[in-house]
This record gives sequence, C-alpha cells and structure tokens, in this order.
Amino acid sequence: MDAIITDTYSVYFNKEGYKALNQHLKKERYSKLFLLTDENTHRDCLPLFLSSLETDLEVEIIEMEAGETHKTIDTCVQIWYALSELGADRRSLMINLGGGVVTDLGGFVACTFKRGIPFINVPTSLLAMVDASIGGKTGVDLGNLKNQIGVIRQPEMVLVMVDFLKTLEKRQLNSGFAEMFKHGLISSGKYWSDLKDLKANDPLESHIYRSVQIKNKIVLEDPTEKDMRKILNFGHTLGHAIESHFLDKGENKALLHGEAIAVGMILEGYLSHRLSSLGLHQLEDIKNTLLERFRKVDFTEEDKHAILALLKFDKKNSHGSINFVLLKRIGDAVIDQQVPEDLFMEAFTYYEE
Amino acid sequence: MDAIITDTYSVYFNKEGYKALNQHLKKERYSKLFLLTDENTHRDCLPLFLSSLETDLEVEIIEMEAGETHKTIDTCVQIWYALSELGADRRSLMINLGGGVVTDLGGFVACTFKRGIPFINVPTSLLAMVDASIGGKTGVDLGNLKNQIGVIRQPEMVLVMVDFLKTLEKRQLNSGFAEMFKHGLISSGKYWSDLKDLKANDPLESHIYRSVQIKNKIVLEDPTEKDMRKILNFGHTLGHAIESHFLDKGENKALLHGEAIAVGMILEGYLSHRLSSLGLHQLEDIKNTLLERFRKVDFTEEDKHAILALLKFDKKNSHGSINFVLLKRIGDAVIDQQVPEDLFMEAFTYYEE
Repeated sequence: MDAIITDTYSVYFNKEGYKALNQHLKKERYSKLFLLTDENTHRDCLPLFLSSLETDLEVEIIEMEAGETHKTIDTCVQIWYALSELGADRRSLMINLGGGVVTDLGGFVACTFKRGIPFINVPTSLLAMVDASIGGKTGVDLGNLKNQIGVIRQPEMVLVMVDFLKTLEKRQLNSGFAEMFKHGLISSGKYWSDLKDLKANDPLESHIYRSVQIKNKIVLEDPTEKDMRKILNFGHTLGHAIESHFLDKGENKALLHGEAIAVGMILEGYLSHRLSSLGLHQLEDIKNTLLERFRKVDFTEEDKHAILALLKFDKKNSHGSINFVLLKRIGDAVIDQQVPEDLFMEAFTYYEE
Repeated sequence: MDAIITDTYSVYFNKEGYKALNQHLKKERYSKLFLLTDENTHRDCLPLFLSSLETDLEVEIIEMEAGETHKTIDTCVQIWYALSELGADRRSLMINLGGGVVTDLGGFVACTFKRGIPFINVPTSLLAMVDASIGGKTGVDLGNLKNQIGVIRQPEMVLVMVDFLKTLEKRQLNSGFAEMFKHGLISSGKYWSDLKDLKANDPLESHIYRSVQIKNKIVLEDPTEKDMRKILNFGHTLGHAIESHFLDKGENKALLHGEAIAVGMILEGYLSHRLSSLGLHQLEDIKNTLLERFRKVDFTEEDKHAILALLKFDKKNSHGSINFVLLKRIGDAVIDQQVPEDLFMEAFTYYEE
C-alpha cells in the first residue's frame, strides 16, 4: 500500500512501515531510542515490533499504565523523569507504541522534553490508526477535562501495522469504528454504506486506508482548524462531554472514546434533523447502524445535567457560545451551528426511544 | 524608543508599549484576559499596569508564588485548573507580568492550554527584559533540572517597561547584569567596556535596548539554534549546573540565575584561555569585573563533583559529549568546543584563587 503523505510526514502501512522506519534510523543520526508502551502493548505488540527493528542504537523501553485514567500530567512527569534518568538528549528519538492514550501522551511528552525531541507514532488500536495518525494533536487530560493540555506538533512518521489489531478485544476494535463511521457521515455516503456492509471477519485494511485518506484530505485543506477541519468534530461536542462525565464515575461506568462518540453522533444527528436538513430516514439509519454495534448507554437525569454542564468546558467553545457540526445529509456536514439549549434534552429522549 | 522587530513579533518599550498593547486589544477579538503575576509583581507592578490598560474585556488575575522553586509542573497544573474554572477558551489572551519565572512558566502554560492560546510577556526584572524577551523559550524545571520541560513559541508581543526596575532589589538587578555582560563578551568588546563604566545610579534604558538588539540579531540569524545562536550559551553550560545544584540546597544557598551564570562565565573564561585564544589579560578583566558585582561563591569538593555530575543532564549535551562555547577574545565567541574533563577542576581553582 502506498504511503499517505501529509504536509510534513508520511503514514506508512505494514511491511512498508518497517522498511521506512529502518531507513529513517539509518539516515538520521539519533543518539538513542526510547520506546513508550503500556502493559498491553508491551506484552502483545513489542516483541513483533522489536523483531522487525534494524538498528545499532541503544533502545530503552518505558512502560506506562494502560487506560484513559492514566492520560494525566502525573504520567508525563514519570516519563519525563525516566527520560532524564536514562540519559535522553535532544537527538534522542521517542517511538510511541500503543493506542491513542500512548500516542497522544507520548507525543506531548516528546514535544515538551528539553523543548521538543523527535517522535514517531505506531498506533496499535483501530481508533488510533484512523484518528490519531493524522493531525498532530498531542495531549493529556486535566481532571475530567479531556485533552485540556497539549500542543500541536507533527511526528517524524506514522506506522500503521494492521497486524496489531489481532491483539485487540472486540470492544476496543468497535471503538475505532465510531471514528470510521464519522468519516463516512461527514464526507462520503458511499464509504458509510461500505462500512455498514462489513461482515464480522472481513479484512479492515482498505477501510483503514480510506479513513486515513479522508482525515488527511480534510486536515490538509485546513491545517490550522479555522474552518472546514471542524467537521471532524461531528459527534464530539456532546461525545466528549459524555466521555468526560463517565470517566469520572470509575472503571465500571467508563465509556471508550468511540462508544461515547457513537452516542454523540446519534444526539447530534437528531440536532441535525431538527436544525439542518438531515431527513428522518437518514437519521434512523444512523441510529440503527450505530446501536447495532454499540450497546445503548443508560443516562439518569443527573447524568444528563452533568453532561450539559461539562459542555461549556469544551475547547470548541469560544466567546461563551457552543458551536456544533451538523449534517445536511449523510456524507455532507456543516460547521458553526448554534443549538438552542432546550433541544439537548429532546435529543437524549430520541436516543432513549 | 523604536520597537525591536523579531521574526514574528515586536518588543515595545515604555509608553510605546502600553500604546501598542491597547491597540492590539482593540484589534484582536479576544474573549477574556488572564493576567498572571506572582505576589511581588501583584503588589509592585500590577496597579501601574492595570491603570495603563484600556480595554472593555473582562480581566482575571491569577497569582502564583514567587521564586524559582515554584517554576514547576505543579504550579502549571494549578494555573491550568484556574484557567479552566475561570472559563478561559481558545480566544483568551494570557499576559504574563513578572520576572523570568513568570514569563517562562506562563508562556508554557499558555502554549499548552487547549493546545495553545495567545500570550504576551511583560518582563519586570532586568534579567527577563534582556534575556527572556527574545527567543520564544518557555519552560519549567523538573526537580533540579532547569527548564527540562518546555516548548518554543513566540508571544504576540513583549513589553519592556523600564519603570518596573525601580521595584527590584539590588541583588535581583545584578542578576540581570550577568546576561548583559554576556552579550558584550560574546559579541561586542565596546558594549562590554560601556557596561564596565556604568555608575551605580546611571539610567539603564539604552543598555537594555542594546542587549535586546544583540540577542535579537543572534536569534534572527539562527532561529532553530543549529549554529551561531549557541553562543548565547556562553557561561551557561557550567552556570546551569551550578544553579541546579544550589537550587536543591534550599533557599539560603540558592543562587539567582545571573549569579550562577557569572561564575559560569569566569569558569568558561578560564577554559577559553586554556583551549581557545583568550589572553590572560582579558581573562583577568572578566574575572575582576564580574567579582566586583557578584559575591564569590564557596564551593566544597562535594559541590564541585555534584555539579560536574549534573553537566551530563544539560540539554546542550548530545551523543554523550558536552559542547562548550568559548571566547577567542572579548567580543568574539566560538561554538562546539570539546573540553577535557580534568580542566573543570582547574577552572574552579582559578575561580577560587
């Protein structure tokens, strides 16, 4: 598969990825490699990765605890100390091997260590492959505020090794599908249909490729997120608030990112039907398709009020008003839409019906 | 005084500064202002600053504790939370009113909050005026490792209000002179002489202006610090290690940045005499001039060994070797010089003589 080229780096796939990495290591005069994993990718992905790595450089492994609850500044502090103690310098390279938590947090650690060292992301979850691979967003949570702290900086390259998906549980895999469905909803009705037609054990490779292409096209057209890039936030305005809210309720209630975004897309689909031109038939298609893959979430009245309170912290919020991305139809989105507050509860009611 | 123009922003002086700020606030559509101070600048500088500020925007004041020991990620976390709770969004502007600790840390907080909000620096110490005003370095310490965490990003503008120096204690003022002497040593013998001739109560305005000009010229010629910009590190390789070492020893022993750099310049002056072409007469001139303004520091054998151990953490360090900036003569520096380890103790002996 051909590499997908962004403005400053390339996304390589499978064998081509290892080849590109090994050539890069030969060319650049790095002083040392630092590989960040969590305990899952350390066990499931690291052996394969190391066996494909060809370099004379010293390699240090740093392991963090897995899970969104560890996407914190405290974890960054631990890794910054580890890098210092292991002698990382400005010519060290960091490779982040893991899901979105590892690549977002590892990217932030690299961008801020000694005012920035180079890094490479190797996403191992479907979600990180189709989402975090493009856009250069790094970040960590601040309390229950998602990605409140971070910077934008591009990696040296991104390697998508589809083989790593075999190590994922089904729930984790589905979490990635939410972002892929979103890519269809905001930019291609055809891709949305193809995703709906996927059978349980169909290979995902070509779909991942299309998702990376779609996201790259959108980001290239609007690198500073002033304009059309905002369509990538479809489902995320309410989705992020939902994710933040349940993150605070402990492990049992916590939703994966894609699970929260799936709810967000149904809710914002409803808002699109009420305020934009999305037809009822397409709205039902979105709801049925997503509820087939994602279990319905129970919201108490208290939950809903807490979620709406969190909305005002959302980083898309500017000058006190909340902007939504809405759909005109499946495959076509519109940005900067204001939503009257009373519609939020209606949207939850539609979700629960 | 004319503004000094960097590649992306301008440094304004005195009345012109307030004028430029007020025009900027009128032009940009910020949502809210956040003013970061420490307890000293809150008391000594904020009233004057606020009385000169012309804006209809809401202004929130955030105060941090003064001093290098508070230049930590913990302080950042407190300010990130304060910004979140006070409703800062991506169109909020942060103004950092204080010495280098406030401008370095406040800049880092702004660059990383919601992946970056705009900020303006108003340095209130001589050191911050002549040093932190140019170059876009932001950062905080990690344990006793100075500026280990940070990013490079330029402020919207820098305002140098020389009046604020009246609020400084003499020791703080002298700390700034170390960087000004450095500007003379690395790039202008004439400026070095002029600084030596300064009497106790002479106005400093034109000297500050020349220091900002010198630093700006060096940074403009090498924005990515690949090359000649490194001459700004003269005195800093050993100076930083000395500063870090005593920072760890508690308030009584702690040295101000300029005090540590003054020692570093004498030590690295000695290395320049031994390894480069700096003549003995000029070396003595450096030592005598600096010891006239900065009290001699007592080093135990233990101190010296601990300082040399810290050297290897210095961020100018790459591939395990330590690079020094040395002087060929006063006003002319050379980068990337290797120093044999046994000379370090000799340099301390020369300092102590």
